[in-house]
Amino acid sequence: MTETDSENGERAGSLEIDVDDRDGSLYRVLSSAVVPRPIAWVSTRSEDGIDNLAPYSFFTVASVEPPVLLFAPVDGADGLKDTPRNARDTGEFVVNLVTEEFADAMNETSATLPAGESEFDRADLERADSSAVDPPRVAGAKVAFECTLHDLVDVGGSTLVLGEVRHVHLEESVTSDGKIDVDEIEAVGRLAGSLYARTEDRFSLERPP
Amino acid sequence: MTETDSENGERAGSLEIDVDDRDGSLYRVLSSAVVPRPIAWVSTRSEDGIDNLAPYSFFTVASVEPPVLLFAPVDGADGLKDTPRNARDTGEFVVNLVTEEFADAMNETSATLPAGESEFDRADLERADSSAVDPPRVAGAKVAFECTLHDLVDVGGSTLVLGEVRHVHLEESVTSDGKIDVDEIEAVGRLAGSLYARTEDRFSLERPP
Repeated sequence: MTETDSENGERAGSLEIDVDDRDGSLYRVLSSAVVPRPIAWVSTRSEDGIDNLAPYSFFTVASVEPPVLLFAPVDGADGLKDTPRNARDTGEFVVNLVTEEFADAMNETSATLPAGESEFDRADLERADSSAVDPPRVAGAKVAFECTLHDLVDVGGSTLVLGEVRHVHLEESVTSDGKIDVDEIEAVGRLAGSLYARTEDRFSLERPP
Repeated sequence: MTETDSENGERAGSLEIDVDDRDGSLYRVLSSAVVPRPIAWVSTRSEDGIDNLAPYSFFTVASVEPPVLLFAPVDGADGLKDTPRNARDTGEFVVNLVTEEFADAMNETSATLPAGESEFDRADLERADSSAVDPPRVAGAKVAFECTLHDLVDVGGSTLVLGEVRHVHLEESVTSDGKIDVDEIEAVGRLAGSLYARTEDRFSLERPP
């Protein structure tokens, strides 16, 4: 890592990080700069019937047609974490969207629990039956995408988990005239460290022709 | 699509979308509910030497070790769009982060231009030389990730473009004591339609033990 004066006539004093010359990971830079991130709150059911629930903010839309969502858990020391392992073993998971009313509960489910204990119970969350898959969704979550496993893709020390959306549940509070009402989705964005952002401070930009 | 009373003792009137029974795409639901999304403003250089610049909000971190970023452009009617095609042909691209001061310029670069015209020129943006790759970064962009192509993965009608980060440029205004300063990154998040969110309305949650 070297601090250099810019040679481009910009403000001096930029920080230039040459990845090959760097010790340690880029985690802090990546999690600080790829922001704000939507949060996939992923529910799975293990083959032993334990309901798992954990937040993942390396998350986006992989494809619209067909509808495929993707999240990218970092592998644990001994392989896949519970959520991607359950998704692999059972072929099913549910992505619940994290909105403001569920921020604290989502955070509680980020703790590491003993095998056999469910994050639903730890965080005192109610399960709701899904329509198209076996794992439950979070009761009251404004949006839930029920997915079947589309693919797992290894990328370095992470695994991309891709799921095809089979069913979408929208709470009445976020619908209007039978459609999703974007103004009612008080989503929470993930920033770095322990920071999150609300999303009600909005502006509009008309796309040029 | 059916509107049903909930059977789970929750608020009545949820909207249930069964994807197999639905006509039309889920684009509106996905882009409204997978929010807020970080915006990758991707610069590439075509084999003819034209500098391309376009925003993509289906974007996340694919892996930390090694550092790999991913964006997922929807394919055009006749195959890959300019940005993924250039990334494929040259093996290089730069992800510039979109912050508030560049929101209008970013929006201008979302227009479709005639072949041979650069979005840098159309949006009156200055190029800055990259350190590790050939395509320029956006001069003044607070964060720029210079990437070499890691992989292209077809997913339905989209293509995941994965790039390994080789060099990171951070403007002095977002650094403190030689590190990235998360409080100074006024990133813009993508919502649905023409809507964007600022990220200064923040809160903190301490991760449980």
